[in-house]
Amino acid sequence: MKNKNTFQPDWRNTPPKSNSFRSIFKYGDPEGFKHPNRRLLEELKNIFGLTNDNFKKKETTGDELVDLRVPSRITEKQIQVFESISGKENVSVSEYDRLKYSTGQTLEEHMTLRRQLVGSIADLVVHPRNKEEVEKIVHFCNEKEIPVLVYGGGSSVNFGLKPEKGGVTLVLSTHLNKILNLNETNQTVTVEAGILGPQLENTLNRAKELYHARHNFTCGHFPQSFEYSTVGGWLVTLGSGQQSSYYGDAANLVLAVEMITPVGTIKTLDFPATATGPKVLDMIKGSEGILGVVVEVTWKMYRYMPENRKYFGFIFKNWESAVNASHEISQGEFGMPAVFRISDPEETHHGLKLYGIEGTVFDRLMTLRGYRPQDRCLFIGTADGARSFTGNIKRQVKKIARKNGAMYLTAFPAKRWEPGRYKDPYLKEDLMDYGILIDTLETSVKWDNLHEVHQKVRAFIKARPKTICLSHASHFYPQGTNLYFIYILKENDVETYRQFQKGIIETIVKSGGTLSHHHGVGKMAGYLMEQHLGKNQMDVLRALKKHFDPKNIMNPGRQLGL
Amino acid sequence: MKNKNTFQPDWRNTPPKSNSFRSIFKYGDPEGFKHPNRRLLEELKNIFGLTNDNFKKKETTGDELVDLRVPSRITEKQIQVFESISGKENVSVSEYDRLKYSTGQTLEEHMTLRRQLVGSIADLVVHPRNKEEVEKIVHFCNEKEIPVLVYGGGSSVNFGLKPEKGGVTLVLSTHLNKILNLNETNQTVTVEAGILGPQLENTLNRAKELYHARHNFTCGHFPQSFEYSTVGGWLVTLGSGQQSSYYGDAANLVLAVEMITPVGTIKTLDFPATATGPKVLDMIKGSEGILGVVVEVTWKMYRYMPENRKYFGFIFKNWESAVNASHEISQGEFGMPAVFRISDPEETHHGLKLYGIEGTVFDRLMTLRGYRPQDRCLFIGTADGARSFTGNIKRQVKKIARKNGAMYLTAFPAKRWEPGRYKDPYLKEDLMDYGILIDTLETSVKWDNLHEVHQKVRAFIKARPKTICLSHASHFYPQGTNLYFIYILKENDVETYRQFQKGIIETIVKSGGTLSHHHGVGKMAGYLMEQHLGKNQMDVLRALKKHFDPKNIMNPGRQLGL
Repeated sequence: MKNKNTFQPDWRNTPPKSNSFRSIFKYGDPEGFKHPNRRLLEELKNIFGLTNDNFKKKETTGDELVDLRVPSRITEKQIQVFESISGKENVSVSEYDRLKYSTGQTLEEHMTLRRQLVGSIADLVVHPRNKEEVEKIVHFCNEKEIPVLVYGGGSSVNFGLKPEKGGVTLVLSTHLNKILNLNETNQTVTVEAGILGPQLENTLNRAKELYHARHNFTCGHFPQSFEYSTVGGWLVTLGSGQQSSYYGDAANLVLAVEMITPVGTIKTLDFPATATGPKVLDMIKGSEGILGVVVEVTWKMYRYMPENRKYFGFIFKNWESAVNASHEISQGEFGMPAVFRISDPEETHHGLKLYGIEGTVFDRLMTLRGYRPQDRCLFIGTADGARSFTGNIKRQVKKIARKNGAMYLTAFPAKRWEPGRYKDPYLKEDLMDYGILIDTLETSVKWDNLHEVHQKVRAFIKARPKTICLSHASHFYPQGTNLYFIYILKENDVETYRQFQKGIIETIVKSGGTLSHHHGVGKMAGYLMEQHLGKNQMDVLRALKKHFDPKNIMNPGRQLGL
Repeated sequence: MKNKNTFQPDWRNTPPKSNSFRSIFKYGDPEGFKHPNRRLLEELKNIFGLTNDNFKKKETTGDELVDLRVPSRITEKQIQVFESISGKENVSVSEYDRLKYSTGQTLEEHMTLRRQLVGSIADLVVHPRNKEEVEKIVHFCNEKEIPVLVYGGGSSVNFGLKPEKGGVTLVLSTHLNKILNLNETNQTVTVEAGILGPQLENTLNRAKELYHARHNFTCGHFPQSFEYSTVGGWLVTLGSGQQSSYYGDAANLVLAVEMITPVGTIKTLDFPATATGPKVLDMIKGSEGILGVVVEVTWKMYRYMPENRKYFGFIFKNWESAVNASHEISQGEFGMPAVFRISDPEETHHGLKLYGIEGTVFDRLMTLRGYRPQDRCLFIGTADGARSFTGNIKRQVKKIARKNGAMYLTAFPAKRWEPGRYKDPYLKEDLMDYGILIDTLETSVKWDNLHEVHQKVRAFIKARPKTICLSHASHFYPQGTNLYFIYILKENDVETYRQFQKGIIETIVKSGGTLSHHHGVGKMAGYLMEQHLGKNQMDVLRALKKHFDPKNIMNPGRQLGL
């Protein structure tokens, strides 16, 4: 027993070597790690029937150096043109760079790169220094019919960055990452589209000091990929942050954009509202790189008032009562919580381990009071806004939770969850080193089909033996919510995994969910778009595409099913 | 003096004769009237230099019967096709009907019809009974290249209903006005697009009784035209209601639509959020009839809780402090008031008369405390939502108003304003009977250009001698608000008026406002669209138009500047 309890796998604590495959697919900070804790490890061993031995030898690790021989289809003469536009130092034809910037965070990409399997990659990587350079590049590429893709933070989970037809990948986060204007009066901030979340947020949080503003601000958008995703990416993939129930989704947070397309530049107006016909801004939202390159974004800021933030957490007897309470809160018209998350029984089981609640006085009290493991459901939340507003939300949420039979868990679980909110993707590498896959799919549902979608998707996932399926809802609206499925399995075969994943996506749609709530479509689920939206809607997207990009150079291939 | 004080013009109290021009342009209920009160009349006399004599003889009244000889370009054989689709009783080729359903509420239309001047009118009027008939009609018209226009409630104020190229006008409010599904769980209601505001709202308000729902609901959208506008119209013109600061604009309140177009039917999905590319729903919003016929709409309902409603009113020392307080409220993050309206000094002057505050104890108190006539500004508001939420909003608004030097006027002015909220358009007929024009134009502004737009537009209007200009802001956002200009003048010449109005619109845009906040563009301001949005954005609208309507049959002409 002692041996079992003290055994720790040799979790990786060193950054990947430069130029290794691992350095490409490893999530986030090369020096960033999050290891499964002992409780999670024991659980995985139990479920998958593994012993310590299975954690003694690593499987494919992707530590090999990238050594490809993939010729670039861009000619020497063309390369010189790109170099003349963006400078020699900002143009790379190296196979490593071309692979790196063709890769996102799709699990299948991890699996294949660990096996040194490489699909289509960019022919050239360019780091433009300003929007004028982007304009010249798009113009030149259109003339020469060279595909153009955009790499922001690299967090796509649906092959959005995969250059199906090669071409040039523009990396926006390298140079196009500046704050251009902070307008305190209008509460807007105009940025270059390649700015990453933390750079934006840290600046806004210090607006008093840096801009002599009367308030500090927040961008309000905190997706799990926050640290490695860009404002432009948030917008073109229709992202949602972990506080979206209060702040809104990316689509609501964008006020105006500038986009460079093969047929010219679009700069939308930054009025708070306008009745001047269908809005081109709306057509750019969710366009996933197929129409043009978004180079500037005007974003709506909120006041940064962490001193007013309230935290709350509850345990419910079961999923139905957690859903019922969330439904009531979402339609209660007293304002919405910011973080607002309910976990189903299986996620609750793991969550209590992860947030360190298992084994505490809460755990004993919960069980004693009849909140039984495998039935009980965790709810965590926060409220942002003015003090009088957040205080009231906490009171109303408590009232509704209690009415639905919940036990209050104080601020503890939400406060435990918060610091690790961006860190879960780091678990992926550790687990995959031992052949364990952790991946996610998600959808949006209406209140009246939430249970059906949840049950059917879970049933599909659980029909695979020894598969963990954790679900939560974390983006709430009066009309419905999202469902987020995290599934963990032991699997080595890429094709088998691909088929399993495909089955989940198809089950989501068949059971009545939408194709994606906030991950976007990319090239992974594109083939389902026409079935999901209907031919007539797809024809509209095709017409838009044809207008903006008549030669089909912008992220061509299966992106968005076009 | 006695004579002067007791004199009352012979305000019209009888409905217009059937088949008269007046019966076409008279706003709203044929038996509905709102006469200028004595205070307003005295004021008008003073400003325009009029005496009682000017109010003894009516000018053009439009009481003549419509007796046109405008041949219809629809052939007898084609008429039979329409009759076979929608029934003989739902097809009219009479000149009266064709004129009636080609007319909106643009002031110029009033002026011309009073003078029996008639422009282009529809060739045929059809009242389709269901969406299948609309589909057949659009299909047939596309085949024969017959223009199709849609008439909802007839409240367009920019020639949106004017058939520049004749054709068929479909009146949707006659039959396509049913509630198809009230989904309490999702808080949505699906309606036929021709349903008028009151029918929808009255049903939702009685959902407990009529649908055995657990709550009563509200549609949340109350434009001044509420009683004579349709849900489909709200959506395609991007309308805003008088409580939009809380409930959102029409664009925010629509969840899904079904639209019949020359190239097929679009039915968008009703998920609360979805990341499946650019949304076709968004392209339909604001399309003003140029893409197709919206036949069904799924609308987001809110709970109807009038028992929680709070009313409040303030007087500010001046416009700047009223704006400052509104700015602070809009960015305060404690929730937004529902009605939220500030009047500039000139509107306040008239508003105090209209709401019956002039001469009351409030009036004396205000003046005594230094809230001087011609400087002071009225603020009225309400809060909707949960009781704890509305109570808090009222407290926070009071705090901010006081900080900005306001005096609290209790609930009185807001409660005086509320019952007459839809009635002001009725004043128009009375005044025009004596040659006095009252019209409105509006725009949206950002906080940092509000004053500039307000001053410049006012300056333009006031540069015309003897012209009243009342302004207010009544739709608030964290990023800005709208400006609504009501101007009153004595003018008989249509062309002179047209030029004046054109000058105002151009001043709005030149000074930095948008072309419209919620009236839409129609055919009146269409010519400014390209200058306002830029050629590249207009090209996108043209591409959309070409896709949906390749033969240009949907509201062809200058609509939206196409």
